[in-house]
Amino acid sequence: MGEIYQFAMKSTNIDPYFFQRRTIRKFSDEEVSRETIRAIVEAAMRAPTCGNMQLYSVIVSRDGELREKINATHFNQPASTGANVILTICADFNRFTRWCRLRNADAAYGNLLSFETAMTDAIILAQQITTIAEQEGLGCCWLGTVTYNAAETARLLKLPELVVPVASLALGWPNETPELCERLDVDAILFEDTYPQQTDEEILAIYKSKEEFPANAGFAAENGKENLAQVFAEVRYPRSVNEPVSEALAELLRHQGFCGA
Amino acid sequence: MGEIYQFAMKSTNIDPYFFQRRTIRKFSDEEVSRETIRAIVEAAMRAPTCGNMQLYSVIVSRDGELREKINATHFNQPASTGANVILTICADFNRFTRWCRLRNADAAYGNLLSFETAMTDAIILAQQITTIAEQEGLGCCWLGTVTYNAAETARLLKLPELVVPVASLALGWPNETPELCERLDVDAILFEDTYPQQTDEEILAIYKSKEEFPANAGFAAENGKENLAQVFAEVRYPRSVNEPVSEALAELLRHQGFCGA
Repeated sequence: MGEIYQFAMKSTNIDPYFFQRRTIRKFSDEEVSRETIRAIVEAAMRAPTCGNMQLYSVIVSRDGELREKINATHFNQPASTGANVILTICADFNRFTRWCRLRNADAAYGNLLSFETAMTDAIILAQQITTIAEQEGLGCCWLGTVTYNAAETARLLKLPELVVPVASLALGWPNETPELCERLDVDAILFEDTYPQQTDEEILAIYKSKEEFPANAGFAAENGKENLAQVFAEVRYPRSVNEPVSEALAELLRHQGFCGA
Repeated sequence: MGEIYQFAMKSTNIDPYFFQRRTIRKFSDEEVSRETIRAIVEAAMRAPTCGNMQLYSVIVSRDGELREKINATHFNQPASTGANVILTICADFNRFTRWCRLRNADAAYGNLLSFETAMTDAIILAQQITTIAEQEGLGCCWLGTVTYNAAETARLLKLPELVVPVASLALGWPNETPELCERLDVDAILFEDTYPQQTDEEILAIYKSKEEFPANAGFAAENGKENLAQVFAEVRYPRSVNEPVSEALAELLRHQGFCGA
């Protein structure tokens, strides 16, 4: 990876950590103490939050039957079952709304905008937790599966009105040193003034390095597909999953009260 | 703030930056070079992204008539007009979907789940840009107003199908050293196993320090309200704004193609 980032690493003081971080999916058995988590979350709470409303909550799943059920919502993938703790980070307008009601204030946060606002707060917090935890030497894996079984997660964690899980972080002390995976060239995503009109050839050029990356090159054959894009769109994130999960997500937003007028 | 974080700062190696960072709203005239932005975004692209799909784009607004129009979408607030650049970070399933179509793959990302997935990627990236920029000495302000005029922003930036602006960062070299604002106690948002059932008294206790924080104490009188909660719910983030903006956001998601089956 040395060459790719040579320019950026030389021309600024950016901490090399940022160029070298990677997701960890295998963890040792060593405990991540309650005090460590508390300190990391406390520091992460300094991250930006809309109007200083802090529209998030974090729930720690450590062990026992409940943890096993949480692992199941993540399809018992090894990054989940092997992690010392799982943090479920929720978009949360419940606490703030209860405060407003108790103070006789007309709180109107049961709508899609308020979900987006609280989700933004929650994802910012989750990413800040990730950065701080990794700089403490911990390993972290975002479990995208949180959206797949969000309603079941909400039930297990007893989430009240206006609280929806939006991120799950598997945390533990690392027990692997994976290779850096590939990323697109920065010029594929960073634009001046307006979004460019890209030709088909330009789109294919953007994904060329991804298609040719050694670890990706064999995926198509392994999955019985013609190319990497088909692996993504038809095996990993296919219509047959996306569409019912999307319906369930909309239903959860209604159920938790985020789809009022 | 010394006391609040004494425990956490002593018991871990967490970089004091994380406990002390603050939003900057006043900037010097010094330029943030194109090279600096490119390096920061390149480093930030190492942050987690769902399935390594990188479902985001960043658009830089620097100067000229277009920048003035972007400032207007942020109501010409000083943090916007005074910033050297504004980065608009977008949830973007367009590039990935085009690649899939060109590769004859059945891409099914025109739905709410896919918007949530891409928005998560985009907010993670935006927060990583914030952290890296701040550690480079830059000041940063998230402009929550991005959601208020998202449709106009999409038009100005010529965003295509499946691209929606979700974060705007005002960036520049700091020209102020603001006080740290208050935050809730970490125990108000960090829970073990399940979300607790909190009494009304507990909710009020959580917000007591916020209500009594010196900079907040005068807000109610200044705004002709009885208390701080009413200032938030009836002046800063009121029903009369939330509900039409929420409708407009839903309409934008439909317009950009994120509400298909």
